[in-house]
Amino acid sequence: MSKEIVKPTTLPGFLELLPEDQILFNKIKDTIRQTYEKHGFIPIDTPLIEKSEVLLAKGGGETEKQIYRFTKGDTDMSLRFDLTVPLARFVAQHFQELTFPYRRYHIGKVYRGERSQRGRFREFYQCDVDIIGNGKLSVIYDAEILSIIYHTFINLGFEDFTIRINNRKILNGFFDSLNITNTADVLRSIDKLQKIGAKGVSSELIHIGLSTKVIDKILNFIKIQGSGEEKLQALISLNIENQTFKEGIEEISTVIGYVKSFGVPEKNYIIDLTIARGLDYYTGTVYETFLDEYPEIGSVCSGGRYDNLAEYYTTQKLPGVGVSIGLTRLFYQLKEAGLLGKNTPSTLTKVLVIPMDESFNEYSIKIANSLRENDIISEVYFGNVKIGKKLNYANKLNIPYTILIGEEEIKNWKVSLKDMTTGSQEIVTLDNAIKTLK
Amino acid sequence: MSKEIVKPTTLPGFLELLPEDQILFNKIKDTIRQTYEKHGFIPIDTPLIEKSEVLLAKGGGETEKQIYRFTKGDTDMSLRFDLTVPLARFVAQHFQELTFPYRRYHIGKVYRGERSQRGRFREFYQCDVDIIGNGKLSVIYDAEILSIIYHTFINLGFEDFTIRINNRKILNGFFDSLNITNTADVLRSIDKLQKIGAKGVSSELIHIGLSTKVIDKILNFIKIQGSGEEKLQALISLNIENQTFKEGIEEISTVIGYVKSFGVPEKNYIIDLTIARGLDYYTGTVYETFLDEYPEIGSVCSGGRYDNLAEYYTTQKLPGVGVSIGLTRLFYQLKEAGLLGKNTPSTLTKVLVIPMDESFNEYSIKIANSLRENDIISEVYFGNVKIGKKLNYANKLNIPYTILIGEEEIKNWKVSLKDMTTGSQEIVTLDNAIKTLK
Repeated sequence: MSKEIVKPTTLPGFLELLPEDQILFNKIKDTIRQTYEKHGFIPIDTPLIEKSEVLLAKGGGETEKQIYRFTKGDTDMSLRFDLTVPLARFVAQHFQELTFPYRRYHIGKVYRGERSQRGRFREFYQCDVDIIGNGKLSVIYDAEILSIIYHTFINLGFEDFTIRINNRKILNGFFDSLNITNTADVLRSIDKLQKIGAKGVSSELIHIGLSTKVIDKILNFIKIQGSGEEKLQALISLNIENQTFKEGIEEISTVIGYVKSFGVPEKNYIIDLTIARGLDYYTGTVYETFLDEYPEIGSVCSGGRYDNLAEYYTTQKLPGVGVSIGLTRLFYQLKEAGLLGKNTPSTLTKVLVIPMDESFNEYSIKIANSLRENDIISEVYFGNVKIGKKLNYANKLNIPYTILIGEEEIKNWKVSLKDMTTGSQEIVTLDNAIKTLK
Repeated sequence: MSKEIVKPTTLPGFLELLPEDQILFNKIKDTIRQTYEKHGFIPIDTPLIEKSEVLLAKGGGETEKQIYRFTKGDTDMSLRFDLTVPLARFVAQHFQELTFPYRRYHIGKVYRGERSQRGRFREFYQCDVDIIGNGKLSVIYDAEILSIIYHTFINLGFEDFTIRINNRKILNGFFDSLNITNTADVLRSIDKLQKIGAKGVSSELIHIGLSTKVIDKILNFIKIQGSGEEKLQALISLNIENQTFKEGIEEISTVIGYVKSFGVPEKNYIIDLTIARGLDYYTGTVYETFLDEYPEIGSVCSGGRYDNLAEYYTTQKLPGVGVSIGLTRLFYQLKEAGLLGKNTPSTLTKVLVIPMDESFNEYSIKIANSLRENDIISEVYFGNVKIGKKLNYANKLNIPYTILIGEEEIKNWKVSLKDMTTGSQEIVTLDNAIKTLK
């Protein structure tokens, strides 16, 4: 009976990596994890599936359209579309068992049934880090989060990147002082400044119904230039009598004041009064991060301060601050931009041990054991095939070294160590081989 | 407007861990990953959702009932229920881009809508390791997989465990020589030996319709005792003229012969002629692993050799050998058995830096920076609260050390290092504090 063959394919929008890329991807993911952990963040790993009523408690808009929702038996369930809603549910559910400020990181996959297009994924990793307070949370943690963004990207090997920060209270207070009520529309226009320029923003604001006088004030406001200190001075000298505005300036001053202690150089952050990050979620500091030479990638790490993490699940007031890296998209874009290594290995193995004949297998195994005991990743190629085929295996995987085991090596308790890059080969003691490999 | 509160809960059968357990869980997961990587296995990370026609290519039985299957738009998709089917699809799909023998490991979540019961989970981690050959694969790799089981459990801190191995060809050849056709039924009975005893098995076999003579032969066969060498001798002296039987003996002899070179002590493995591992998948070596003092947990790591990994997706013949650890269930059971640490920390932080007053924040931040530069996980407690509350935070999380920063410490460029276990406290230089903490 001949079997029917099903064509082996994945769903569109679901990224799957081959060994070389997977190894690079994991290296980036590990670096992010290590940076988060070094700052005392606690891991969390919530279910990928949750009750739909929990995930959609806030409801509305794009989320409901994009969510993967289904039933099994009587249960209405959905795949999580971000890591923030599960965090809110987790903190509300386990409130009594957690210690605050609760510092958590979460690296995991999320699902959004977006329209399939290049560089957009329906399954992707988010790497979130948040600090949640019980009732209140010092604004100094906002400076710490900025520092964590900085250290993460430094550890990832970047130097030229800029963390742009703003404070929603400054924007809200400013609009308030101008008696603007349709804040959402105005923010949406301001967000387009880089795309459509000051004139474009201006004509949009006229369309919304703002007076020329108000528009001029807005344009002057978003055009404030200079160093952080100068921008703050310019804001103060606007003499706006609005409590929210003043709080915003005080908060951003505190953040900027502390950032230096955390070891973040001035070249890596800037106050950007045009950054708003969405319309209704954040309430204070907001962050976006750009790679200086690749602005087209957009923000690679964003987030901010929120007053009330879990308002849909508890009456406890839980303010927090955090950021997220959309890792799958970032990886894809770094690769597209040619920023990831070329000809990197397709395996983690550092040495392939090759028995020249099957009768040397046991000696070869023992050599590999010793290498592993010395923390050198190694494997033995078994099977009655020609040496050329075994060397070819090492070449195809870009394994940097091979150790050849033949009669002579065994007789003299030595190994033939071959550098696969240069092709040079020498007979050395195992100890010396280990020294070279380390 | 008062909001409606949704009760924050997870779905039944979905395990979620609190910080203390999550940290332990990750430690175990990391150890498994490190062991797999050290042996030169390559990571893979396939989508959790696949086309239903791909996942269900083999079809049939429990799988179809338990699978989470749904549609979005026109697409019929399902959550993966193991990591083997995605591996088969992956290898068939990317056959041209992979190098063989292809050594891959995969640690990820899988989904089965099982009846909800204690210790059974609908979302759980599997940790799989497999070696796939192109056309053929040396049986020495079967010995290597046994060695990887051994090293994994050693690295996890276990000593008293037994890897039980058998070879399906021995069973199949033996049954063949007795002209038994309903092999499946006989295997099912033999599998119950530990539960129902030899008499129970005997009466089941009568029921199936076997003759007393055949049953006696089967009982004698599964009762073969002794060391590995003795068992092999006993099998050979049965003088069974069956090609499959002979191949099985040869293969298991090779495996046992090589295992020693891999450094696996004799106390940690045994030939067990009653182990079959399911009915139609494995074709050669099979493995089960038991914790000697907790046999009730069942096998904690199982697998075997298969002739044809991807037969539903390609005509390429891809033999392989591998094992899997069901990590979520294992973790749950180790915890139930009291085998996991007690009073372990609820954070990874080694030192909490406590400014005695908000004016000492910046100095405290710099201390924490230095600690992190020395690979000591540390955090600063910010906020205008009493020292007692800050110390209490350290106590609740089981943070082993605190560093207190006051006027005197700053004046003398020193820190007060407090051991939270003993309560002892001393004023030392930062360098000395780092030495103590390392």
